[in-house]
Amino acid sequence: MAEPGSADGRIEGFLDLDLDRARRRGAPEAVLCDAKTVPQVAAIAAEYARLCAEGRTDLGPVLFTRADAARAEAILNALPEALHAADARLLAWPPAPPEPTGGLVIVACAGTSDLPAAREAELTARYLGRPARLIADIGIAGLHRLQSRLPELREAACVVVAAGMDGALPTVVAGQISAPVVALPTSVGYGVAAGGVTAALTMLSACAPGIGVVNIDNGYGAGHLAAQITRWAPTAKE
Amino acid sequence: MAEPGSADGRIEGFLDLDLDRARRRGAPEAVLCDAKTVPQVAAIAAEYARLCAEGRTDLGPVLFTRADAARAEAILNALPEALHAADARLLAWPPAPPEPTGGLVIVACAGTSDLPAAREAELTARYLGRPARLIADIGIAGLHRLQSRLPELREAACVVVAAGMDGALPTVVAGQISAPVVALPTSVGYGVAAGGVTAALTMLSACAPGIGVVNIDNGYGAGHLAAQITRWAPTAKE
Amino acid sequence: MAEPGSADGRIEGFLDLDLDRARRRGAPEAVLCDAKTVPQVAAIAAEYARLCAEGRTDLGPVLFTRADAARAEAILNALPEALHAADARLLAWPPAPPEPTGGLVIVACAGTSDLPAAREAELTARYLGRPARLIADIGIAGLHRLQSRLPELREAACVVVAAGMDGALPTVVAGQISAPVVALPTSVGYGVAAGGVTAALTMLSACAPGIGVVNIDNGYGAGHLAAQITRWAPTAKE
Amino acid sequence: MAEPGSADGRIEGFLDLDLDRARRRGAPEAVLCDAKTVPQVAAIAAEYARLCAEGRTDLGPVLFTRADAARAEAILNALPEALHAADARLLAWPPAPPEPTGGLVIVACAGTSDLPAAREAELTARYLGRPARLIADIGIAGLHRLQSRLPELREAACVVVAAGMDGALPTVVAGQISAPVVALPTSVGYGVAAGGVTAALTMLSACAPGIGVVNIDNGYGAGHLAAQITRWAPTAKE
Amino acid sequence: MAEPGSADGRIEGFLDLDLDRARRRGAPEAVLCDAKTVPQVAAIAAEYARLCAEGRTDLGPVLFTRADAARAEAILNALPEALHAADARLLAWPPAPPEPTGGLVIVACAGTSDLPAAREAELTARYLGRPARLIADIGIAGLHRLQSRLPELREAACVVVAAGMDGALPTVVAGQISAPVVALPTSVGYGVAAGGVTAALTMLSACAPGIGVVNIDNGYGAGHLAAQITRWAPTAKE
Amino acid sequence: MAEPGSADGRIEGFLDLDLDRARRRGAPEAVLCDAKTVPQVAAIAAEYARLCAEGRTDLGPVLFTRADAARAEAILNALPEALHAADARLLAWPPAPPEPTGGLVIVACAGTSDLPAAREAELTARYLGRPARLIADIGIAGLHRLQSRLPELREAACVVVAAGMDGALPTVVAGQISAPVVALPTSVGYGVAAGGVTAALTMLSACAPGIGVVNIDNGYGAGHLAAQITRWAPTAKE
Amino acid sequence: MAEPGSADGRIEGFLDLDLDRARRRGAPEAVLCDAKTVPQVAAIAAEYARLCAEGRTDLGPVLFTRADAARAEAILNALPEALHAADARLLAWPPAPPEPTGGLVIVACAGTSDLPAAREAELTARYLGRPARLIADIGIAGLHRLQSRLPELREAACVVVAAGMDGALPTVVAGQISAPVVALPTSVGYGVAAGGVTAALTMLSACAPGIGVVNIDNGYGAGHLAAQITRWAPTAKE
Amino acid sequence: MAEPGSADGRIEGFLDLDLDRARRRGAPEAVLCDAKTVPQVAAIAAEYARLCAEGRTDLGPVLFTRADAARAEAILNALPEALHAADARLLAWPPAPPEPTGGLVIVACAGTSDLPAAREAELTARYLGRPARLIADIGIAGLHRLQSRLPELREAACVVVAAGMDGALPTVVAGQISAPVVALPTSVGYGVAAGGVTAALTMLSACAPGIGVVNIDNGYGAGHLAAQITRWAPTAKE
Repeated sequence: MAEPGSADGRIEGFLDLDLDRARRRGAPEAVLCDAKTVPQVAAIAAEYARLCAEGRTDLGPVLFTRADAARAEAILNALPEALHAADARLLAWPPAPPEPTGGLVIVACAGTSDLPAAREAELTARYLGRPARLIADIGIAGLHRLQSRLPELREAACVVVAAGMDGALPTVVAGQISAPVVALPTSVGYGVAAGGVTAALTMLSACAPGIGVVNIDNGYGAGHLAAQITRWAPTAKE
Repeated sequence: MAEPGSADGRIEGFLDLDLDRARRRGAPEAVLCDAKTVPQVAAIAAEYARLCAEGRTDLGPVLFTRADAARAEAILNALPEALHAADARLLAWPPAPPEPTGGLVIVACAGTSDLPAAREAELTARYLGRPARLIADIGIAGLHRLQSRLPELREAACVVVAAGMDGALPTVVAGQISAPVVALPTSVGYGVAAGGVTAALTMLSACAPGIGVVNIDNGYGAGHLAAQITRWAPTAKE
Repeated sequence: MAEPGSADGRIEGFLDLDLDRARRRGAPEAVLCDAKTVPQVAAIAAEYARLCAEGRTDLGPVLFTRADAARAEAILNALPEALHAADARLLAWPPAPPEPTGGLVIVACAGTSDLPAAREAELTARYLGRPARLIADIGIAGLHRLQSRLPELREAACVVVAAGMDGALPTVVAGQISAPVVALPTSVGYGVAAGGVTAALTMLSACAPGIGVVNIDNGYGAGHLAAQITRWAPTAKE
Repeated sequence: MAEPGSADGRIEGFLDLDLDRARRRGAPEAVLCDAKTVPQVAAIAAEYARLCAEGRTDLGPVLFTRADAARAEAILNALPEALHAADARLLAWPPAPPEPTGGLVIVACAGTSDLPAAREAELTARYLGRPARLIADIGIAGLHRLQSRLPELREAACVVVAAGMDGALPTVVAGQISAPVVALPTSVGYGVAAGGVTAALTMLSACAPGIGVVNIDNGYGAGHLAAQITRWAPTAKE
Repeated sequence: MAEPGSADGRIEGFLDLDLDRARRRGAPEAVLCDAKTVPQVAAIAAEYARLCAEGRTDLGPVLFTRADAARAEAILNALPEALHAADARLLAWPPAPPEPTGGLVIVACAGTSDLPAAREAELTARYLGRPARLIADIGIAGLHRLQSRLPELREAACVVVAAGMDGALPTVVAGQISAPVVALPTSVGYGVAAGGVTAALTMLSACAPGIGVVNIDNGYGAGHLAAQITRWAPTAKE
Repeated sequence: MAEPGSADGRIEGFLDLDLDRARRRGAPEAVLCDAKTVPQVAAIAAEYARLCAEGRTDLGPVLFTRADAARAEAILNALPEALHAADARLLAWPPAPPEPTGGLVIVACAGTSDLPAAREAELTARYLGRPARLIADIGIAGLHRLQSRLPELREAACVVVAAGMDGALPTVVAGQISAPVVALPTSVGYGVAAGGVTAALTMLSACAPGIGVVNIDNGYGAGHLAAQITRWAPTAKE
Repeated sequence: MAEPGSADGRIEGFLDLDLDRARRRGAPEAVLCDAKTVPQVAAIAAEYARLCAEGRTDLGPVLFTRADAARAEAILNALPEALHAADARLLAWPPAPPEPTGGLVIVACAGTSDLPAAREAELTARYLGRPARLIADIGIAGLHRLQSRLPELREAACVVVAAGMDGALPTVVAGQISAPVVALPTSVGYGVAAGGVTAALTMLSACAPGIGVVNIDNGYGAGHLAAQITRWAPTAKE
Repeated sequence: MAEPGSADGRIEGFLDLDLDRARRRGAPEAVLCDAKTVPQVAAIAAEYARLCAEGRTDLGPVLFTRADAARAEAILNALPEALHAADARLLAWPPAPPEPTGGLVIVACAGTSDLPAAREAELTARYLGRPARLIADIGIAGLHRLQSRLPELREAACVVVAAGMDGALPTVVAGQISAPVVALPTSVGYGVAAGGVTAALTMLSACAPGIGVVNIDNGYGAGHLAAQITRWAPTAKE
């Protein structure tokens, strides 16, 4: 554990990395990039590089989330070997995920437009050590798409379901399986569905139990929760 | 048609019944009771009784909607032969619905708690001249209930779908049938679903096309719209 | 019907087209473009081109909705003969609508600014096989404009009414005709009317029955619903 | 004028009547009763009685608004000669309104349920010295009711329009007359119209200019504003 | 009056100008530009030019509101002599306002940032024939600024008060004068005040009577209402 | 499994129990009582009694949630041996929970007022087969209360955290432990916290990952999800 | 300080009083009564009585807030000597406030209806050791009432300003004095002001700096904050 | 004091600087830049330069807040010696803050992204004459960061706590210290936390007393309030 008050990870008046998190919570801190300036993101990446150069071996995998092109470039400057999954706006360092243990995480999404959040969830679960798989475009406007995937969905120890618009998919999935569902509302939609609030409300109101909801577009949080949930489940192949 | 300015249906400073509506719209005016005082409701019922006594034969069927026990009693006082469906909070006068014509209206509801609005829709469609049927408790937490009813739902020329909570049922139904769906959000629910706004938003955001939404708990409006939609469809048995 | 699990229309981890929809619902799936990336839209158009080249004859007419210039270009690249109605942000393939059957759909809009959504509704109804016509700029600030069009509006078997700002036009129209009204709120407006939520609320609250509301700016949904509603009505000339 | 700091109308730690208001604004302070306890209302009425007994002749007419039966009784105890209009929840003291001057105020309401707010507006205008008249139940679901009243509405120097539900009536009225319109949203309605917020938003978004909106159910404020607006207009008969 | 159905002002499928409005309402239709495309605005300006060239003399003054640089240029192309007040985003044609009659309109604004809406109100009142004056920057954070202007404000027959942020100025002004107040919320503000909704709510909730509220940033509507209100008041010098 | 279309659990036009749920999901259907009438609740309890009398042994444990005194009495009439936990508004039938398996569920609540929802969660987890424990009153206004309980909280395989008001407790707990957190917002609070929406928003916005949120006051859903999450964890003592 | 884990103030599974608060924060914990049942409130009062009987002398003054008649009776049963201020819904034990030190707290309220919250603030400040005074009914609809009190308000080291409706009073007061203002929105109002959210938004949006806002009707929080703010100010006479 | 009506600081129809504010309130007026045009900001800076050139010595320190690069340049043009803190979007003139007096203000922020608002608060407090210090990145997802800073936080006479997302930090801080807390919600966040409203609601709902909330991102207001609060506290070293 980092001693309180020690210098590691702290830049006075600017930053205080939670380097103790992996020990305390089982998963290291992630860096949310989009509310930080490019120089701030660069400084954080540099601090991780510095700590690593000083021999800290307990830092990773560090995830940089919601990173646009400019922020990704700043991170890759300091940590050139990091993996960059542009479709998920995510960077991971070190680049290789750990050997998977625990139960299978399946991330299902209602439509093609939900892919960025869904991919962020899938990669997060994988970097936190779980086998993970993605199933796309099974929205409920055509139930046969979902039904043809039910056997596969029932293999999972936890299913993350991403949906925008009416956000109804998690209810339907949860009603068909015994594993817990992490509902991931996305900002996909327009009119009263714009921004994802309607999807979030629908998921909180789900008439099927067994659903835990995360913030809109919070693929990282969904994948993190799924990784925690599946920790004790029998290990599955990806 | 009532002459504009004529006395029929008008009580100066209080009331001006739209007696022309049946001619103009194909369905007579209904009386929304819950925002009126008991004496106001009584006076309106008395005016209909008076007009009828004066030989007007073009008034009915008049529907009194959202009537609690006190308002129902006031109406039955003036129009003792009226039908009173307490579960739908509705009174109809004259009591017998017209001989059904046009396509079948099916009213489906997600849960037992949605029955009052669903029944109001069913009765309205029937009093406006359509064959009508009710299917209860087919919410999407258990899809097999809905699926076992699909053949029946596909007989309808229009399906009214009532749901509270997450309001997801209309999307799923609309995705499986070719008839138009009237989505009827209900105020059933608690937490973020309380009052029915979440259900209404979900229905407006439905990822399946072919859905027209009415106000929360507006069973009358849903049944009225369904009756208009099915006017030209091949006549079905109830 | 596409066999569940078959490869047609499915690109694993990305897309699963609902090719069964025309058979099941009477109208094929449409592609909502604005929440998809340009490469995603291009891939979908290419899949349709591929399926067509393989001899599938049951796919169309396919509508691409909410397509900006870049997405339209990507679609036209794959399906060069598609019709592109830029004012409605819509592409249709194959380009010729079917021979019209069923009742007349009239799309009326309150102001010039509502034209994009109104045109999308009109074209959707036409590509789904109905005679369709557009009446523009009959907002209720000057009732004579509406009144001079009433005889025409009464010819329709369904009227789609598009309005932003106060969203009051559908109520007034519905009160004057016997056909059902599809209310289409638009995002036209500013201040408390910005984004169209006020218009949507007004339409849901309409004091005249016979109105089904769709999502804000959802011209496609409005036209689709109107096409379903008018299916059985006596065929009218456009 | 009451001297600042003087005792007239002030009960330390409880009350400080704005006895200067009639001089400063042309209309005396009114007492909003429903947020006050019965003893508080009683104490205020008693203070007016005391001031009157001391010979103050510049106090009235004092209006007590939103008074239920218990508060009305408390007021009548202290000021037994006050007029009590229970339908408007209003008491006026002294009971006789002033001789009317200025332009005619017409208060029009959409439905019977809007009468309480409409009557409060009518009586307020009359007690502030204007000729005033009420026209009930001319909602836009049947335009002929409004149209048959247009000649009468055009006599007014200001029209107050009360409406709940969709709140669309003020727009339609304003579009037909040259006098300013005071839009008075009411809490009449259910579902998304419950409480009157939708009506208020509609009125603020009106596509016709010439409308000033007051708070929901604020009949007093509407009548007060109408009385100010019509002060200079040619005097009309009531 | 334009005959209903006549061609004047109507472009089928696009536009139907309300040329009857000046006769009916005392003020001609204005053209709200920001929700229209540049070609649409250009076509409307051209139609006015055409009508004028055909000898119509009853059209003006026509106001074009919420016009940015591109729309202003399109208007000036068709109507080169129009006045363009860029700070108010307004164009007027013909450029000279009528000789003022009726009571004085004063437009007061809380801060410098409220000037665009305030100027739009001032110019609208002037083009509708009233003497009009602007008082800037008298927000209530420093009451002496308002108090030093009270004698001037008391000369007005109607005061338009524009304010963003907390929107409290109209209440304070209304409490000090006998003329009616038109409250004009502006979108000036940030945080919970962003967009002007808080200001609008404050104004509707004003504890002082005598206030009519218009939509956020609706300077045109405020000026129009003020011009109607002051029509009968003794004529004042500007 | 109940055959689709079979009579078990279905009362036409009223009810269609999801008797297949235990097989499909691992937990039987629960009956949400507060939106149903007393006779409806009585009929459902009677149907369970009837099914049991007919020898069905796969029904339980059935939970009746959100049951007030009248509904509880109706249930106990039909199922006299049911357990009734009035503080949790819950009835369970048969009354004895199954032998616990899987990981420990701890339900922690911020204040005494959150106990009803917390107890409902605790009992649900226990009736779905988990060891479960309750820790009360550890709100973050005094962190030492939470800190003294951390060793205990770290024993759990899942922690349900119930909180009203600011809803901040789940974030703080999640930040200190490695098990997943189910956040249960309660309707405890007043002012902007009334009804629990603020607590729900806070929980969705939590800056610590590892939190899944359920609907406000949905203790049943929280307990159900926790029971699913802990299914595979090493069995703990209660 | 209470040892973490010690029994004082803790009733397992129900309650854990923060007895350390006075040492840590300078003011003891208060008991919010309205979200607790009567037996819960009774148990808490009994626990305080027990602790006192055991010789704890560091507990008070304990405030019981938002207590209705039934809860007050339960408290007085256990702590018969407690002070009960029914108008503020507050009980204090021991009944005598401490000798005042620090700067003067003035609580000003806009109207008579704001008195309950204002009185709660005044009493809280006094029981936390400050000289405190109440000024009632100085709403901004008549500025002279406020202005006549300015010399008095300027004596305070902190002014709590309670207001409902438009919530504009804190801005005006803050603009005239140099002491910090605690803005206390109240739920007094109707229409868009109902519940106090508009007042809270107005206060957060105040165009005058120097204002800190507390929750709606949170007189306790306002008085507590004012007591902290005035701790170091020169002691004033009450 | 500026004489009411005098020309100093007033540009007719545009601006009326509150030059009396320093005398009346103890702190001079600040200029909120982002809602003003660049020429308006330039004119205000020029007016200050002019007043200074005329020998006014009672104007400063003047703060220009929320100034982007273009507005900063305009200010530096007129007042070249002004300090420009780009990270806080703030300019101060004259550039040197006064010698600090009164109690220490500590500004703590939850995350790196909250720095702009936090720095604005810190600089405002310093320019209004207080010793001020910044502590960054002590969000509650890792409590040890906060706990290691508690001794330092307890030195402050007032702590400003800036936080976005869930906005929970002020509650936790307030619960640990005896000084008052100014809660500063920031717009940092996404999904339901976007724009900062959730953070503001959380802070208003804080279950710990002793918190006053300012508008979202209102670092200036927070620093101003903190400076007023700490005026009388024993002077601390920065």
